[in-house]
Amino acid sequence: MKHDQSVTHTIGHLIDGRIVADAARTQPVFNPATGLSSSSVALADRATVEQAIASAQAAFPAWRNTPPLKRARVMSRLKGLLEENADKIAALITAEHGKVLSDAHGELQRGIENVEYASYAPELLKGEHSRNVGPSIDSWSEFQALGVTAGITPFNFPAMVPLWMWPMALVCGNTFVLKPSERDPSSVLFIAQLALQAGVPPGVLNVVNGDKEAVDTLLTDARVKAVSFVGSTPIAQSIYATGCAHGKRVQALGGAKNHAVLMPDADVNNAVSALMGAAYGSCGERCMAIPLLVAVGDAVGDAVVAGLKTEIAKMKVGPGTDNGNDMGPLVTKQHFEKVRAYVDSGVAEGAELVVDGRGVQVAPGHENGYFLGACLFDQVRPGMKIYQEEIFGPVLGVVRVKTLQEAMDLIDAHEYGNGTCIFTRDGEAARYFSDHIQVGMVGVNVPLPVPVAYHSFGGFKRSLFGDLNAYGPDAVRFYTKRKTITQRWPSAGVREGAVFSFPSNR
Amino acid sequence: MKHDQSVTHTIGHLIDGRIVADAARTQPVFNPATGLSSSSVALADRATVEQAIASAQAAFPAWRNTPPLKRARVMSRLKGLLEENADKIAALITAEHGKVLSDAHGELQRGIENVEYASYAPELLKGEHSRNVGPSIDSWSEFQALGVTAGITPFNFPAMVPLWMWPMALVCGNTFVLKPSERDPSSVLFIAQLALQAGVPPGVLNVVNGDKEAVDTLLTDARVKAVSFVGSTPIAQSIYATGCAHGKRVQALGGAKNHAVLMPDADVNNAVSALMGAAYGSCGERCMAIPLLVAVGDAVGDAVVAGLKTEIAKMKVGPGTDNGNDMGPLVTKQHFEKVRAYVDSGVAEGAELVVDGRGVQVAPGHENGYFLGACLFDQVRPGMKIYQEEIFGPVLGVVRVKTLQEAMDLIDAHEYGNGTCIFTRDGEAARYFSDHIQVGMVGVNVPLPVPVAYHSFGGFKRSLFGDLNAYGPDAVRFYTKRKTITQRWPSAGVREGAVFSFPSNR
Amino acid sequence: MKHDQSVTHTIGHLIDGRIVADAARTQPVFNPATGLSSSSVALADRATVEQAIASAQAAFPAWRNTPPLKRARVMSRLKGLLEENADKIAALITAEHGKVLSDAHGELQRGIENVEYASYAPELLKGEHSRNVGPSIDSWSEFQALGVTAGITPFNFPAMVPLWMWPMALVCGNTFVLKPSERDPSSVLFIAQLALQAGVPPGVLNVVNGDKEAVDTLLTDARVKAVSFVGSTPIAQSIYATGCAHGKRVQALGGAKNHAVLMPDADVNNAVSALMGAAYGSCGERCMAIPLLVAVGDAVGDAVVAGLKTEIAKMKVGPGTDNGNDMGPLVTKQHFEKVRAYVDSGVAEGAELVVDGRGVQVAPGHENGYFLGACLFDQVRPGMKIYQEEIFGPVLGVVRVKTLQEAMDLIDAHEYGNGTCIFTRDGEAARYFSDHIQVGMVGVNVPLPVPVAYHSFGGFKRSLFGDLNAYGPDAVRFYTKRKTITQRWPSAGVREGAVFSFPSNR
Amino acid sequence: MKHDQSVTHTIGHLIDGRIVADAARTQPVFNPATGLSSSSVALADRATVEQAIASAQAAFPAWRNTPPLKRARVMSRLKGLLEENADKIAALITAEHGKVLSDAHGELQRGIENVEYASYAPELLKGEHSRNVGPSIDSWSEFQALGVTAGITPFNFPAMVPLWMWPMALVCGNTFVLKPSERDPSSVLFIAQLALQAGVPPGVLNVVNGDKEAVDTLLTDARVKAVSFVGSTPIAQSIYATGCAHGKRVQALGGAKNHAVLMPDADVNNAVSALMGAAYGSCGERCMAIPLLVAVGDAVGDAVVAGLKTEIAKMKVGPGTDNGNDMGPLVTKQHFEKVRAYVDSGVAEGAELVVDGRGVQVAPGHENGYFLGACLFDQVRPGMKIYQEEIFGPVLGVVRVKTLQEAMDLIDAHEYGNGTCIFTRDGEAARYFSDHIQVGMVGVNVPLPVPVAYHSFGGFKRSLFGDLNAYGPDAVRFYTKRKTITQRWPSAGVREGAVFSFPSNR
Repeated sequence: MKHDQSVTHTIGHLIDGRIVADAARTQPVFNPATGLSSSSVALADRATVEQAIASAQAAFPAWRNTPPLKRARVMSRLKGLLEENADKIAALITAEHGKVLSDAHGELQRGIENVEYASYAPELLKGEHSRNVGPSIDSWSEFQALGVTAGITPFNFPAMVPLWMWPMALVCGNTFVLKPSERDPSSVLFIAQLALQAGVPPGVLNVVNGDKEAVDTLLTDARVKAVSFVGSTPIAQSIYATGCAHGKRVQALGGAKNHAVLMPDADVNNAVSALMGAAYGSCGERCMAIPLLVAVGDAVGDAVVAGLKTEIAKMKVGPGTDNGNDMGPLVTKQHFEKVRAYVDSGVAEGAELVVDGRGVQVAPGHENGYFLGACLFDQVRPGMKIYQEEIFGPVLGVVRVKTLQEAMDLIDAHEYGNGTCIFTRDGEAARYFSDHIQVGMVGVNVPLPVPVAYHSFGGFKRSLFGDLNAYGPDAVRFYTKRKTITQRWPSAGVREGAVFSFPSNR
Repeated sequence: MKHDQSVTHTIGHLIDGRIVADAARTQPVFNPATGLSSSSVALADRATVEQAIASAQAAFPAWRNTPPLKRARVMSRLKGLLEENADKIAALITAEHGKVLSDAHGELQRGIENVEYASYAPELLKGEHSRNVGPSIDSWSEFQALGVTAGITPFNFPAMVPLWMWPMALVCGNTFVLKPSERDPSSVLFIAQLALQAGVPPGVLNVVNGDKEAVDTLLTDARVKAVSFVGSTPIAQSIYATGCAHGKRVQALGGAKNHAVLMPDADVNNAVSALMGAAYGSCGERCMAIPLLVAVGDAVGDAVVAGLKTEIAKMKVGPGTDNGNDMGPLVTKQHFEKVRAYVDSGVAEGAELVVDGRGVQVAPGHENGYFLGACLFDQVRPGMKIYQEEIFGPVLGVVRVKTLQEAMDLIDAHEYGNGTCIFTRDGEAARYFSDHIQVGMVGVNVPLPVPVAYHSFGGFKRSLFGDLNAYGPDAVRFYTKRKTITQRWPSAGVREGAVFSFPSNR
Repeated sequence: MKHDQSVTHTIGHLIDGRIVADAARTQPVFNPATGLSSSSVALADRATVEQAIASAQAAFPAWRNTPPLKRARVMSRLKGLLEENADKIAALITAEHGKVLSDAHGELQRGIENVEYASYAPELLKGEHSRNVGPSIDSWSEFQALGVTAGITPFNFPAMVPLWMWPMALVCGNTFVLKPSERDPSSVLFIAQLALQAGVPPGVLNVVNGDKEAVDTLLTDARVKAVSFVGSTPIAQSIYATGCAHGKRVQALGGAKNHAVLMPDADVNNAVSALMGAAYGSCGERCMAIPLLVAVGDAVGDAVVAGLKTEIAKMKVGPGTDNGNDMGPLVTKQHFEKVRAYVDSGVAEGAELVVDGRGVQVAPGHENGYFLGACLFDQVRPGMKIYQEEIFGPVLGVVRVKTLQEAMDLIDAHEYGNGTCIFTRDGEAARYFSDHIQVGMVGVNVPLPVPVAYHSFGGFKRSLFGDLNAYGPDAVRFYTKRKTITQRWPSAGVREGAVFSFPSNR
Repeated sequence: MKHDQSVTHTIGHLIDGRIVADAARTQPVFNPATGLSSSSVALADRATVEQAIASAQAAFPAWRNTPPLKRARVMSRLKGLLEENADKIAALITAEHGKVLSDAHGELQRGIENVEYASYAPELLKGEHSRNVGPSIDSWSEFQALGVTAGITPFNFPAMVPLWMWPMALVCGNTFVLKPSERDPSSVLFIAQLALQAGVPPGVLNVVNGDKEAVDTLLTDARVKAVSFVGSTPIAQSIYATGCAHGKRVQALGGAKNHAVLMPDADVNNAVSALMGAAYGSCGERCMAIPLLVAVGDAVGDAVVAGLKTEIAKMKVGPGTDNGNDMGPLVTKQHFEKVRAYVDSGVAEGAELVVDGRGVQVAPGHENGYFLGACLFDQVRPGMKIYQEEIFGPVLGVVRVKTLQEAMDLIDAHEYGNGTCIFTRDGEAARYFSDHIQVGMVGVNVPLPVPVAYHSFGGFKRSLFGDLNAYGPDAVRFYTKRKTITQRWPSAGVREGAVFSFPSNR
């Protein structure tokens, strides 16, 4: 892990429509496929963040008064620009995050769908109107912008997760300060510049790179009215507590440990194929990944383990820039070591390591990349560290139970409640599961039940803190406050008085 | 009115993705600014229309099963193509309809907004879902496509009115047969070809030019499930009766005679400026034009007549292609003569012709164009032909009353109830007027209260036959049928039986 | 069929809050369990119906201006009164229609649920409000009452079907004229009187008994703005054509021939139990009854026929007033004869009559009642009269096919598309069926998928003419017209001018 | 302030359907009209509150699975019981709070409207359903209950504010623990018992009386998923911070200082009449009261002060049980002294005390009651304590400004943003004010713009902490979490396989 200052450029901030490089503190950004760094990212101090907030505050009044249709059209134009620049954005993602290019494209596509939904703003912002709530009294509600809003986003979807937030915040009339992950900041900054090109006025969208100091500034500055966060549960909880203690509205999305349930009547081949992507796609660095499979009955348990073993053998691991690869490196050296330690602990705690990806070989020139091959555990049991904790790596564990109820009890006992999935053909099993399971996003034969952009994303239990989910219709409510007007006009006005009040020569 | 066959080309139909010229019967298309014709339009016979219907029927199953998001994106692409081709489309409109280019652009812009709204389809098509309508019983509604739908549209907005209809019909999953006006068919055909380019599959959108034979075929063919119509009231009523008698759903928008009310407290200068556009824009050939002004009290009555007289004197009349002109010609020679006869009748019935546009002079080379200057009548009274009937020309009549109630009684007594407007500063007058007036679209200080694309368009009384308005949210309901599913799963299924039904070696 | 004038009383109309007996023409009302008549019903002539319309017209302005919350509370009170008087209403239904008391109670309960839904009016009538459709321009829609509306209802649910209509019409601000079936008019008249007691003002709800003359008056009188109809398809189509030809909005619900599909994986016992009620409940005189069962594969076909045969043997047929009976008589002697003729024709056309109900024995004193026992046909085939036509009697036919697709093709080829049902455990079969079948109300393991009161009721194909379904959310749109207001205020008003316009001694 | 233990009874808690008197700690409850106490209220310790939470937790699964329609009907029955017992409830309110009986009835009526809205639950709980989010993939959202929820409510509306909370929480499927004000606990306990009578199962609604210990238990117990609070701003902020730090969702409504703006064109008589109730009703102990009037221009300023002075002279102050009185006592001796001190401070800071209510005389026998007459200050200025702080007493201050903008700047600069009102006839002033003012509930000529029960209640700035408002549609979202299901069925199922998988003898 070498960082040659001489060859790097510094990734700055976007404040008030201009790129600002705040040179006081920087941190190297690595290419996880090589372990080399060719750039560093500026870490904003409090003053820089406050400058971004001030810019957002100043831009608010004019943007708030811009008709929703005009704001929406900026998003339509942005959608076009994102499509035009998709290859470039995907390359930026892969270079800093490591995921394979097709996966980077997939992430971007999901983000574009959120921009597309934001472009429906005139429909989404309609208020409720009631005539005659009393005699000649009307009342209606409007969903008004909050002011300056902020987002703090994780490394694993550098392009998509920010696009869950600020496009909806903006079309609702807010301005925004985004603090993306300092691990892979380039794609988000590039996208923000496209937003300016699409017509977002300076100051309406600001990006500050940084660390805890930047986050703390956003959480405590009184001008920031709302904070959206996606990250790990301990941080999410802390963000929620701190932001709320400062009077803000906060939605904080945390960790996950999503279980898939394989019923005895499921099509095992289909499930194996679905699980390969769900467990190992993007190296398992997804909060909607499936790191645990609960097999109901040993028949399907045995079959699915055999099937996965066969498929894993065909997987290709290597740099994400090579389109032939199925899986790239983990995001950082530290994370790579942490995930490998989880695999060690699983073995130590007695789970059966069916496939061991620890010694994976990659293409020459990538020996210092953070590569870990797919790992498959069987006989995982609750209580084991690899069962309880979020690994965020290419590690799938199989748990075996005898009944659906036993599977559901496991899931409901777990700390997290983000996503889950059931593989079955049976209508009743699917309905019982999806109704009763304490998880916010449920798939029926859909391994990654990420809601489409016109629905909303959010988990239960310690996977989400707050009232409202991310993106989709919930985002409209999170980024607006309801104002209710009750109106009655005095009766003796110009209507009756017309003929008397005004001269008439008739 | 000369029609030199040697120099014309024939405007055909668009059926199953191909331009078809049905040569059996044609009719010349004129340039109203010159009275010359350089093209003719094919008039489809029953067989040709049936061919279009068959094409739409064949294209339906695949289109209906295309996810709404994909259908919506076709509309996004079409929006882009319409913007790119705006100048060309405006030129086609002006050449055949006569309106000035800026007005043609305005019309197109409104149409584009309908395409934009159609692109929100994934949000608009959401059904209602109820869990536990009974114990473990769920019920939900889906809004499913009808099949083949049809539209019949007028000459006065050749680009916009078709765009009220088929984009919403298509995103709801229907296929479409459009029968536009045979007076100005070129812009609609061009737009339909852009739709193909945007990704509308062959057969999903068909255009047939024609006359009564084409209309009758659409109204009586059992494969056509719904018909949207915009035109005059007698035809609208006949279309509604005939289509319904053949079991279809029909929405038929008819004529108008929109009154603006000028209250004694209104800003007269502002009203004059608004009325100039509302009365004379597009030569008054708009169903939302203001042909009648009701002045409450003679003070504002005198002031507004004086103000209008002054403004009319500044108006420039001439070919729509000249950007310096404010008003172009009427659409056809017949219509020109009909409007002029209305002016004659107003004089004969005793109204005061304050400004007489009958002898208007236009630029050389346009002596045979169908030009009529702006006409202004004062002292118009109910019962006069120019008060009762829809003139559809540049003729504004001023009626004088003493109270708002008197103005409202006039409006409510009139056959039509399309649009209306009140000019006032007074909240109570505006609220009383907009609540009680028997008119579907009400403007408060807005002379042409055409609802924006995310609301819906429709009048009351004999201005609309049917349950649901045009475009906007109502269009979703018009172009879909509600299907309600009620679902209960038998309880003794794979869920409880899992451990017994399937072999287990544990 | 004897009608002793000396012992009858005459059932009149409810007009302007008073019972009116129009004696010119009457018709006997029979007790179908005995064949005797003890009352007759007045048949309104045109003048009487016009009087009801005039009363509704006069009551409209005040009722329309009554706040929705107050109108809704009338429905809450009516709900209480219906519950208190349930036994009496059920007795009136059974005495004139014949259905068993528990079934009459069931019908009433469904009707009460519609009254309950109507009491949600303040929520249901909310319009859509958009701030800043342009700079400082707002636009909103209101759903305004139509005026006088009308309903024409069938004999088979004398209490429920009227309650589908007028409660929703009333809470939307309309007034109503109801023409119920002249076969069983007593319960509806009693319920209308309870409505007055609950606070419906005189003239807001009127009931006229009658025949074609009454119907024709309602369809042609210009004051009636909307007509809801439930009955047979030929009449529905004629009502739709006539009402529309007179410029009204019309929803006309017609006949049905609902097929249930039994899949090879279904629980046959459960299906048999469900089918007994669905086929024979209320003697099959329900538009949501299941007169056809399509068995997919002979295994389930044989099993279900055997099961039904066993269950039918246990059924008790007799007067509805005896709580031990499962099925009462048919509604009239004519109808009884018509249904019996269908059974004869089924035998003649070669279907296998597994159970013959033609010789059913009933309790002494009911020998002249219109009783027919449950009939079960196997080997019914398309083309047979008992397959094609709506029998409306206790006759279930079993059709045998080899695949679900074959079953669906049968259903889609049939004239009607009201309700259908699939019995299966399989999620995919259920989803494919409910998505693609051309039927408006689909049950998955629910034999009578009548939507709950907070959804809406309506079929496809020739089972419904019109745009909007009955009751539930669709009823709000059917009984209101959308008014859209666009509002802009002149800027130089009291706001800026305050300090100048008004004297100040500061 | 005497508290004779010998004559008191102890007001207990309602836990698991039974009244529990927890005798360890109690506190006297006073009649503010006499200063005497005849009862005391039990103060729950942690163990008692945990018992209530445990009861709510145990009752949750069954209640959550009860169909919404059934839960809604419990509310319908409760509405009836509240109406029947209105006199008794009003008497309980007046005896402990002091407000006049008519005002107590008014409060209850508003509470009943919230119960009525809760009875619309089947409509309110509908989720969003999307067919074909991808090919043959469906997705829908359900709004599922949270579990145990809690409410903490203030003394000033002892009946109404709890009814803002638990009826909506319950119909959404949650169970509830309510901690009402210990000043006036009797009406809420009585209403909770009526709820049991209406069909709320034991444990579903629990009431615990108490102080900080009870509140802290509710805020920190992990089983409580959501907390609704209404009270002062410092407590609201603390509740929000503490509840959120424990991972809950919280909505905390705080204080207010509502300004009414009187425009030069307003009808002063009408404004005076409206302000009398808004300023002095319920002794000003309302978060929607108007304690500040901003007169735009001295003309209306002088006129309104004169008018108020005249009206105040006619006011009758005395025990709330006497229907002739307009205003009762303040709630406690401490609060009385605090409000009187505010009046003193206003005089000291230089405001002009136009009417001094400090020496008010009341009927014999009430000399120890906490009575303060109406006070009116003119020449109040920002910065004065009586301008800045929430007094919650019968003290109205008049501020004078020259323009509407100046008035709006004052309002926007104030800490609170709960309600406000403008008196004007001018449409533009009303629209500008209601659009731009940073206040959540705006009245146009409506002095107390409390939203009706089918809209939602909430302020801006430091008047509300949280994302969602109280009652109405927002309450549905606060008391539910969105679950999104994405469903795809494997294609090779029983549908295609039917004929092969199952034996057939055809």
